[in-house]
Amino acid sequence: MYVLVLHGPNLNRLGKREPHVYGSQTLADINDSLQKLGRELDVDVLTLQSNHEGELIDRLQEHQDDPSLLGVIINPGALTHYSYALRDAIAGVDVPVVEVHLSNVYSREPFRHHSVIAPVVQGQIAGLGAEGYLLALRYLATRKGRDVQR
Amino acid sequence: MYVLVLHGPNLNRLGKREPHVYGSQTLADINDSLQKLGRELDVDVLTLQSNHEGELIDRLQEHQDDPSLLGVIINPGALTHYSYALRDAIAGVDVPVVEVHLSNVYSREPFRHHSVIAPVVQGQIAGLGAEGYLLALRYLATRKGRDVQR
Amino acid sequence: MYVLVLHGPNLNRLGKREPHVYGSQTLADINDSLQKLGRELDVDVLTLQSNHEGELIDRLQEHQDDPSLLGVIINPGALTHYSYALRDAIAGVDVPVVEVHLSNVYSREPFRHHSVIAPVVQGQIAGLGAEGYLLALRYLATRKGRDVQR
Amino acid sequence: MYVLVLHGPNLNRLGKREPHVYGSQTLADINDSLQKLGRELDVDVLTLQSNHEGELIDRLQEHQDDPSLLGVIINPGALTHYSYALRDAIAGVDVPVVEVHLSNVYSREPFRHHSVIAPVVQGQIAGLGAEGYLLALRYLATRKGRDVQR
Amino acid sequence: MYVLVLHGPNLNRLGKREPHVYGSQTLADINDSLQKLGRELDVDVLTLQSNHEGELIDRLQEHQDDPSLLGVIINPGALTHYSYALRDAIAGVDVPVVEVHLSNVYSREPFRHHSVIAPVVQGQIAGLGAEGYLLALRYLATRKGRDVQR
Amino acid sequence: MYVLVLHGPNLNRLGKREPHVYGSQTLADINDSLQKLGRELDVDVLTLQSNHEGELIDRLQEHQDDPSLLGVIINPGALTHYSYALRDAIAGVDVPVVEVHLSNVYSREPFRHHSVIAPVVQGQIAGLGAEGYLLALRYLATRKGRDVQR
Amino acid sequence: MYVLVLHGPNLNRLGKREPHVYGSQTLADINDSLQKLGRELDVDVLTLQSNHEGELIDRLQEHQDDPSLLGVIINPGALTHYSYALRDAIAGVDVPVVEVHLSNVYSREPFRHHSVIAPVVQGQIAGLGAEGYLLALRYLATRKGRDVQR
Amino acid sequence: MYVLVLHGPNLNRLGKREPHVYGSQTLADINDSLQKLGRELDVDVLTLQSNHEGELIDRLQEHQDDPSLLGVIINPGALTHYSYALRDAIAGVDVPVVEVHLSNVYSREPFRHHSVIAPVVQGQIAGLGAEGYLLALRYLATRKGRDVQR
Amino acid sequence: MYVLVLHGPNLNRLGKREPHVYGSQTLADINDSLQKLGRELDVDVLTLQSNHEGELIDRLQEHQDDPSLLGVIINPGALTHYSYALRDAIAGVDVPVVEVHLSNVYSREPFRHHSVIAPVVQGQIAGLGAEGYLLALRYLATRKGRDVQR
Amino acid sequence: MYVLVLHGPNLNRLGKREPHVYGSQTLADINDSLQKLGRELDVDVLTLQSNHEGELIDRLQEHQDDPSLLGVIINPGALTHYSYALRDAIAGVDVPVVEVHLSNVYSREPFRHHSVIAPVVQGQIAGLGAEGYLLALRYLATRKGRDVQR
Amino acid sequence: MYVLVLHGPNLNRLGKREPHVYGSQTLADINDSLQKLGRELDVDVLTLQSNHEGELIDRLQEHQDDPSLLGVIINPGALTHYSYALRDAIAGVDVPVVEVHLSNVYSREPFRHHSVIAPVVQGQIAGLGAEGYLLALRYLATRKGRDVQR
Amino acid sequence: MYVLVLHGPNLNRLGKREPHVYGSQTLADINDSLQKLGRELDVDVLTLQSNHEGELIDRLQEHQDDPSLLGVIINPGALTHYSYALRDAIAGVDVPVVEVHLSNVYSREPFRHHSVIAPVVQGQIAGLGAEGYLLALRYLATRKGRDVQR
Repeated sequence: MYVLVLHGPNLNRLGKREPHVYGSQTLADINDSLQKLGRELDVDVLTLQSNHEGELIDRLQEHQDDPSLLGVIINPGALTHYSYALRDAIAGVDVPVVEVHLSNVYSREPFRHHSVIAPVVQGQIAGLGAEGYLLALRYLATRKGRDVQR
Repeated sequence: MYVLVLHGPNLNRLGKREPHVYGSQTLADINDSLQKLGRELDVDVLTLQSNHEGELIDRLQEHQDDPSLLGVIINPGALTHYSYALRDAIAGVDVPVVEVHLSNVYSREPFRHHSVIAPVVQGQIAGLGAEGYLLALRYLATRKGRDVQR
Repeated sequence: MYVLVLHGPNLNRLGKREPHVYGSQTLADINDSLQKLGRELDVDVLTLQSNHEGELIDRLQEHQDDPSLLGVIINPGALTHYSYALRDAIAGVDVPVVEVHLSNVYSREPFRHHSVIAPVVQGQIAGLGAEGYLLALRYLATRKGRDVQR
Repeated sequence: MYVLVLHGPNLNRLGKREPHVYGSQTLADINDSLQKLGRELDVDVLTLQSNHEGELIDRLQEHQDDPSLLGVIINPGALTHYSYALRDAIAGVDVPVVEVHLSNVYSREPFRHHSVIAPVVQGQIAGLGAEGYLLALRYLATRKGRDVQR
Repeated sequence: MYVLVLHGPNLNRLGKREPHVYGSQTLADINDSLQKLGRELDVDVLTLQSNHEGELIDRLQEHQDDPSLLGVIINPGALTHYSYALRDAIAGVDVPVVEVHLSNVYSREPFRHHSVIAPVVQGQIAGLGAEGYLLALRYLATRKGRDVQR
Repeated sequence: MYVLVLHGPNLNRLGKREPHVYGSQTLADINDSLQKLGRELDVDVLTLQSNHEGELIDRLQEHQDDPSLLGVIINPGALTHYSYALRDAIAGVDVPVVEVHLSNVYSREPFRHHSVIAPVVQGQIAGLGAEGYLLALRYLATRKGRDVQR
Repeated sequence: MYVLVLHGPNLNRLGKREPHVYGSQTLADINDSLQKLGRELDVDVLTLQSNHEGELIDRLQEHQDDPSLLGVIINPGALTHYSYALRDAIAGVDVPVVEVHLSNVYSREPFRHHSVIAPVVQGQIAGLGAEGYLLALRYLATRKGRDVQR
Repeated sequence: MYVLVLHGPNLNRLGKREPHVYGSQTLADINDSLQKLGRELDVDVLTLQSNHEGELIDRLQEHQDDPSLLGVIINPGALTHYSYALRDAIAGVDVPVVEVHLSNVYSREPFRHHSVIAPVVQGQIAGLGAEGYLLALRYLATRKGRDVQR
Repeated sequence: MYVLVLHGPNLNRLGKREPHVYGSQTLADINDSLQKLGRELDVDVLTLQSNHEGELIDRLQEHQDDPSLLGVIINPGALTHYSYALRDAIAGVDVPVVEVHLSNVYSREPFRHHSVIAPVVQGQIAGLGAEGYLLALRYLATRKGRDVQR
Repeated sequence: MYVLVLHGPNLNRLGKREPHVYGSQTLADINDSLQKLGRELDVDVLTLQSNHEGELIDRLQEHQDDPSLLGVIINPGALTHYSYALRDAIAGVDVPVVEVHLSNVYSREPFRHHSVIAPVVQGQIAGLGAEGYLLALRYLATRKGRDVQR
Repeated sequence: MYVLVLHGPNLNRLGKREPHVYGSQTLADINDSLQKLGRELDVDVLTLQSNHEGELIDRLQEHQDDPSLLGVIINPGALTHYSYALRDAIAGVDVPVVEVHLSNVYSREPFRHHSVIAPVVQGQIAGLGAEGYLLALRYLATRKGRDVQR
Repeated sequence: MYVLVLHGPNLNRLGKREPHVYGSQTLADINDSLQKLGRELDVDVLTLQSNHEGELIDRLQEHQDDPSLLGVIINPGALTHYSYALRDAIAGVDVPVVEVHLSNVYSREPFRHHSVIAPVVQGQIAGLGAEGYLLALRYLATRKGRDVQR
């Protein structure tokens, strides 16, 4: 069983871009923490980053029918606010998808308060920094062995 | 003379994704029906699908100056609702473009009621399922031999 | 089996009113084309025009329980944009209803972008001129002999 | 060190009210799980429920200056959407506050999409059921011993 | 020292697409003028065009940490109006970015009045045709040798 | 003394149209119940139905100056939401007018939440099914013999 | 040469309905004044009133091609605010149409501030009471013998 | 069998507060009329008033599981317009709830036109004064002995 | 008795500015026509133009208490759309004020559809060209000798 | 004669909560200043604070009929922005009520710009810190002995 | 030390214009009261009135750098609602500015509820009549001798 | 040939007002730079500043017909956001007008994002400081000797 972790546009710049907002951890640091917790929870973790909306959709489609897929963690970056194409791709996924945001999007610019992704995911975790990814992984791991239904 | 048929994001998942909304036909089925009707009407049909906005624009630009191009059928998927870049690409095309939607977008979520593409196409066909593509092809075929002007 | 074609307010002035928008065909021309295609497809066609909202509702109610009714084609004219009474009448019809507009309403005044009828019909065809009516008839004819369900 | 857990209006009816939305666990079940995880993480857990906005504010004010308070978990129920008084009370708290919602509020009625609380908390967890409370507790526990700063 | 010039979707069609709006100069003509003025001002000019949002972000990220980068000129085309992902990429750039539009976007369709890019750039030049690019280059060149700070 | 009961568009289809929304009683059933209660309360009841806005206004004008008119019960159907002409006609009536809706319009589509009629009537009864008409009649009957003033 | 004067819904109740808003003159009084001024200006005057939107459109269509028609004066009553069907009928008329309102609609309820008719008429006269009709007639009379063009 | 009648904030001031809006009857008068009609209809009536939102919710929760509860009549006063907490409490009640307003809220200030309660009750009665409570009681009494289902 | 005619910003450019919108008459031509009609109707006419909001208010205040003032004709130009200061000045005038616009403002840009002046004047005349001023003068003259009341 | 001073939610935390916004004075300090000025002006001052909307309404109702009540000073805290129940309570008070805010609410978050209380009070004082309460008391004291009328 | 008092458009008509709204005091009366209180508080008072936005800005600029300026009291009249130019002038003033309104603007027309000035002043006093000016003066006087900082 | 440079309200305070926003250059410094560049480009430069909307319009009208006028540079200050009168004046100018803003108005308060002037000018330059004026002058100079057409 594995969890797919998708990082959207500009997340490859983490730790370099606006550290007062996103913290000083790099994406590699976060992926390492996820791998480490995955081993602890006995769940494989596959991480991917892309600045291309189409790429994120392609990857999601490649994995979505895999019976070993336990769930998806996605931080769509700024695509959160307008990518209805990504939304439709997520809506077609049968395992739970958890939307993660590093910062508290609700205390930032108004356009960041609205997520076109949120209505089609299982749930959201926002504002808890890199810890949010780990909590999401923990959540999906607890579903291991259960009869998951969205 | 040929018609270019462009399928946008997630349409490659047709028949697998939410069949109660989009029907059980696959994209291959629809393309086959189009080819068959094309032969009947003596019009070549070229079909393409991509999850990448940029790819759809690239393809449109490649074909738009071809004097054999009779018209374009496009189902922009969720790009319908926000891709002003695709809109601008379509606005630069001189042959008729018909926008097709499988489902009745007006009886679904509010964000699906608005098409940024609609103002720059010749017309729309929505809610008539896969049949919509065939009607669009028929429409473009009737223009064969005429002095098409948008 | 027959198809009911309802033309709303001002469509009796077709060919005389703003030909640059609506074309030079008269309503009689369109009805003739529909009759001709009906004979070809072996479907009777009954056409009616009225400038009265109440009259259009009365006619729809008279026909809606007729077991020979295959479907309805309606161009509600400007009633499209505000007649919730016509909408309710259509919502009560069990056979497929196709909404047709001669011009591309989405490239005209903003008030024409919104249809209160659209959410309760099977589908829409817009911007394809008088050809739109013929495509709608063709669509309904393909349903002949099938178990139609909305 | 302890964590204060505040449950807002109608959460005392959990398990009895609309189980298809909120699940079949009662509030007592959730509080038990929190106590159990608290013991595991070596954090005391104090839980309170009230249908009174004023009561929730009074309780928050009583605890906010306690140097042993590690953080607050709050599910404001429907007060989420309009209680600016509760918001002001939370804004005056110096330890991290995590907002938890059992259901995915973004796939429900529009009024539930907007939280007046969200801009002043550390972060939100929504849609992950009772598990959301446990993840929030885990998050606050990881901050134990650190120099917490909002 | 060099200036990076990014041209967004459909700008490769300049001179071919709607010349009454965008003028008859091609993109090659504009790039030539920029190179020529660059030589005059002793600034290297690197020009790139793409119809892919992700591609523009990738290129921007590749160059943004280069100490020789003096500034960026970007005409985001229609991405101007919705690409929050491009906005975030630009917000992470430390040298001045100037947004250029060929036409006066404020005298065109309402959706063109809103730029999601504008709040994170140094400034905008709009409506001055290809000359706008040259003025932007001139502006960036005047900053050469200064201690640039955004 | 008599009460005028006006039924608007599509109410003649009651019992046939969407029974899960409007119940299985026909308009004749409702009118019979009204006549029966009228006899009990010693009030004459005159019932009328029309799909024509103009007809409803004509009828209201014919009766409004009749000194025997005790009050009016009106279910304007979908005209509720846009017929300012009907509103003006009602505003000109000096006896109490009660607006009745069979279903709870506030738990249906958003356009049904707004009544242009409501500000000019005495009061509304909604969501109580056919019983709503009888309660309205009872209300008007209690005013019999009093000095009615709007 | 003649002028067609169309009075919309509820104007037949003038002098009886809300005299503090509309004055105490009856519609017959106004029509008499128009006839009298018509004779003075040597213009025939034809007056019509209806509570039916469809009727007003039918009448307008009957007269619009008459070469003797000098112009139209219309007080659409409450249809002013929503009858796009009447708007379309007026837009198809080639002689000048003047919209008249007895009261100052801009100092009344907000819904009366918006006229869907206004964009397609020659001009409006509002708030000048019955005198407004006479001024409109005077205006149209001054065009007699000129080459009228809208 | 009994009916619970809940009066919201400021209704204890009835008869003293703005009698031109709410009439001169006191709350005691209304409660007496309800008791009297209850005896006539053989239904017990329990009346409660509170200025505290939390108190109203507490009381509703205490009674909602009582098998003798026939229905609830609620006049939420100004809480009507913002108390989503009260709404959630009502949504959890299985017997019919009728919302009553003394005045015609639709002819008063705009904020009174919107009820957050209305979508979750059985129906509303507004503008019929104290009589509205009696009609609501009568409605609930007719359901006595039936298999009530919301 | 005299009538004050106030012309707002840019009206001194009439005949020179956009003649397809405003006609080819100059302001002097219009003032001459007004003087001529004034002599005919035995009313003095005083005309003033200013590009300064404050100047227009000063002039209005100087004349408003003059017992010989019969009425005011004002074309506020673009001040129509935002000058609440001019509105307040007009609201303080006791004689009738008529607002005149040369063009049909409702068929032009959206910002021209809204007049902040309109709610406080007696009435408006729009779209009838320079004739509009003359009709306004004629209207005010008919009030001569009557007991004028706003 | 006395003045009732009501402090709403979270004002008991003054001096402890966000001193850069609300200043460093405690509520006790403010109440002391009010008492001192009251003695100077020969007016008794009664101060109350509550975090409960219902409590504030209860207290207001208890005092409102007291003939010795000179006026009310209220700082509703965050209830300012949504408590229509408090608004209705204030609207029922016959003596002048002055709304006071310590900070300039118009230079803070948008939700603080709107007061549902403001339309029913005598006046507001905002942004003048604790001094605002004293000015309000001074205002009410000047009314002592006059015939106060709202 | 002196206080500058600026009165905006139409305030010179006080006592003559709408006394039921603005009271019967003239501007001279108010200025006299201010002078008198100024002498009492040992503060010079300089009062100015203009109907010209530019004049008010010119005056403010002339005084703003005067070290003797203690503060500014401004009643911008209707400029309150749209004069961003006046706002910018006030934002450039370093001493406290208090905005005063005679009437309770929040119980009047909606456009009067919004002040573009409010976000840049120290505070507002509204609805307390001419007394509001005196309270503002008192407020500024208390700052005499302190280290004023905005 | 000369260029007219108009500076709007408060720009005379440049260098003194909010230097972190507008820089430390005074208006005299900017005018000197313009004169210097003008001599270099062989173009006369005429600069004017006023806090009066009417004054700016008067000046524009005086110069607009001068055959030597090459173009206009205007920084309307805060008038940008509401002065439709200035807009109309600019719309009547036949030579190119360039709108200049010192700061990036799109990263400031929302009201500064909207320019009523923008739709009628040739183009805009914003956020490039005093350099923006020089670029505008350079742009207009390149048009010298050409057949300028707006």
